[in-house]
Amino acid sequence: MKDPERIKRVASRLVKAYDEGYSVIAVVSAMGDTTDELIAKAREITSRPPRREMDMLLSTGEQISIALLAMAIDALGYPVVSLTGKQVGIRTDSVHTKARIQHVDTTRLMKELGAGRIVIVAGFQGVDDYDEITTLGRGGSDTTAVAVAAAVGAEVCEIHTDVDGVYTADPRVVKDARKLADISYGEMLEMASLGAVVLQPRSVEYAANHGVRIHVRNSSHDKPGTLVQEERCMEKDMVVIGVAHDTNVAKVAMLNVPDRPGVAYKIFSRLAEEGINVDMIVQTSKERQVTDMVFSVNSDDAPLARTITEELSRELDAGDVLVDDTLAKVSIVGAGMVSNPGVAARMFEALAEENINIEVISTSEIKVSCLIAAEHVERAVQALHAKFGLGG
Amino acid sequence: MKDPERIKRVASRLVKAYDEGYSVIAVVSAMGDTTDELIAKAREITSRPPRREMDMLLSTGEQISIALLAMAIDALGYPVVSLTGKQVGIRTDSVHTKARIQHVDTTRLMKELGAGRIVIVAGFQGVDDYDEITTLGRGGSDTTAVAVAAAVGAEVCEIHTDVDGVYTADPRVVKDARKLADISYGEMLEMASLGAVVLQPRSVEYAANHGVRIHVRNSSHDKPGTLVQEERCMEKDMVVIGVAHDTNVAKVAMLNVPDRPGVAYKIFSRLAEEGINVDMIVQTSKERQVTDMVFSVNSDDAPLARTITEELSRELDAGDVLVDDTLAKVSIVGAGMVSNPGVAARMFEALAEENINIEVISTSEIKVSCLIAAEHVERAVQALHAKFGLGG
Repeated sequence: MKDPERIKRVASRLVKAYDEGYSVIAVVSAMGDTTDELIAKAREITSRPPRREMDMLLSTGEQISIALLAMAIDALGYPVVSLTGKQVGIRTDSVHTKARIQHVDTTRLMKELGAGRIVIVAGFQGVDDYDEITTLGRGGSDTTAVAVAAAVGAEVCEIHTDVDGVYTADPRVVKDARKLADISYGEMLEMASLGAVVLQPRSVEYAANHGVRIHVRNSSHDKPGTLVQEERCMEKDMVVIGVAHDTNVAKVAMLNVPDRPGVAYKIFSRLAEEGINVDMIVQTSKERQVTDMVFSVNSDDAPLARTITEELSRELDAGDVLVDDTLAKVSIVGAGMVSNPGVAARMFEALAEENINIEVISTSEIKVSCLIAAEHVERAVQALHAKFGLGG
Repeated sequence: MKDPERIKRVASRLVKAYDEGYSVIAVVSAMGDTTDELIAKAREITSRPPRREMDMLLSTGEQISIALLAMAIDALGYPVVSLTGKQVGIRTDSVHTKARIQHVDTTRLMKELGAGRIVIVAGFQGVDDYDEITTLGRGGSDTTAVAVAAAVGAEVCEIHTDVDGVYTADPRVVKDARKLADISYGEMLEMASLGAVVLQPRSVEYAANHGVRIHVRNSSHDKPGTLVQEERCMEKDMVVIGVAHDTNVAKVAMLNVPDRPGVAYKIFSRLAEEGINVDMIVQTSKERQVTDMVFSVNSDDAPLARTITEELSRELDAGDVLVDDTLAKVSIVGAGMVSNPGVAARMFEALAEENINIEVISTSEIKVSCLIAAEHVERAVQALHAKFGLGG
């Protein structure tokens, strides 16, 4: 929601659904640049704001949105109530700025729906067991929407965004990228994790675990978007359904780490405690008793990851820590991959044809990812999209 | 708190008190124009926002302040925690936008102070019994401060503001106005109610009821301000201690109201239900069976008061409703008045000497107020200040 006009438009849309006989719950995020403005305010005070206080600060963005949207709906003459994360009963763990939803209490929601009200819920926020305000991290409103949809057993969870749906690749990079009519949870999860930032990965995971159908659609028109659900109608039996990329990747290398049991546990549990998500991990034995521990993180987390790994390196009597944030990740995704050998090989072939060097490889049953130099990423995506015949 | 620099200055001040060995609780209001900006946002959506949603919206202003102030204190290396009205346990009634504090639960406050933390509390807000966010109205942060001070048994409640203390009259109007060293609750309550807007009247009332000493002082220097407390050292046995004025006054006249029992109750209970504070009331019997009901309200409430009284007039089969918002109230205040007859007469004399017509008079044991034309208000204040010898 960017401005008053946009808020009024959203209000009209919700009222329309209400008139069609639906019980309507809308989960909203902060308006336009509100979150960035709040972060800027914090930075004017200190470069290292405590995470708990960041949550106290950032959660106001959504609270402003829900109040204004409720006012707009009230002005149209419809019964409405706005609810904060606390009021809805969205319980999370206590990991400030990156909390995970543990439970949604539906008592209040059901009471308000029962009273015939349109319910406007603040996304992105919750409370922990000690009544502390938490936030779910970037894109957390998606997760709130899915969690609320799951809790009340909603028919569908619509995610209104500024794109038409999920594409076979980023349309800004690949001209003939195609919108997918549907996609499975697993594929969507990989696409989301790999940089196709349509939905927050956690929201897809939550939807998969609770069987919530998600409809990703454009907020500025009524055309159908992409359905994310259990079974997908295998379009032309596609093995690969999309190419994703992410330029927000940094590689951290801890050199000469003593190669003994428990070391990897120590390193990655410490990083987890600090809330850093580690993605690809490669351990290369160089010689006896030492190893290089290489992993990738979101580049936003790179400075903190460096601090932590340098501490760990001293504790473990290991060598230097190298951080490279000029990297990108490119990935192919498809549930059909598991039964089609040779898909990974075709990917490496495509990159080799473009003379692109692969730094790190990681695979799962439904995706293959390669870390490459950031400067080659667009060329890599275009080559892969063509190689697997994904064009429209 | 206006800007980052101001926030850091407040942080230094609190840290200084902490270093001196005090347990420190700071109640803060919204930064600079935040509240007005939020109100403007609401007005862009609708001219009649529901009060509940206004509270949802406006309470974010203080939440932003407490988070930023806590960050500033944390950056100085001191233990700190910010708390919303909900988290502090400030229980109010359910009159949105003008709620009254009913109870402050000190469990969380005491726990945080016990842990050695500086506690930053969001002023102006609370929650009702249904977990709905409420706000206390303009200046509500003062009331929060006094209520919290009373609940924890604080030694003193300092109110930091942009003036040096309480004056015998508004120094912008009267050049030789003098700062009072102390003032009794009753006098302060009258001064505050009558337009000397140093403290919210409700905060003084709360302080009087709970015996909280208030120290009103300027936030930009360390000089002592004015103490508001039970017993005051009667300065030179002054009968009148100050002249207050308020230009934010409207007069409402309901003409030809049937003069039968229960009518006044009906009118003023309806106004109270809508949260309108009625100040001076005059009932003039014109002839048998009808009366004119004249009263004053805050001019912000005048449009709503008009709507309500026009409805009432139809229900009661009364006459026209006239609203005049070109009025001002001028008052003299002093606890010594009760034992000094003739004070009111001297006030009327001063106004008569200036050829100022009095529209309505109201008196209490410690004040006399007159409603006059707004254009004469400065002259009236100057004349009264001189008449009672209040100059420095």
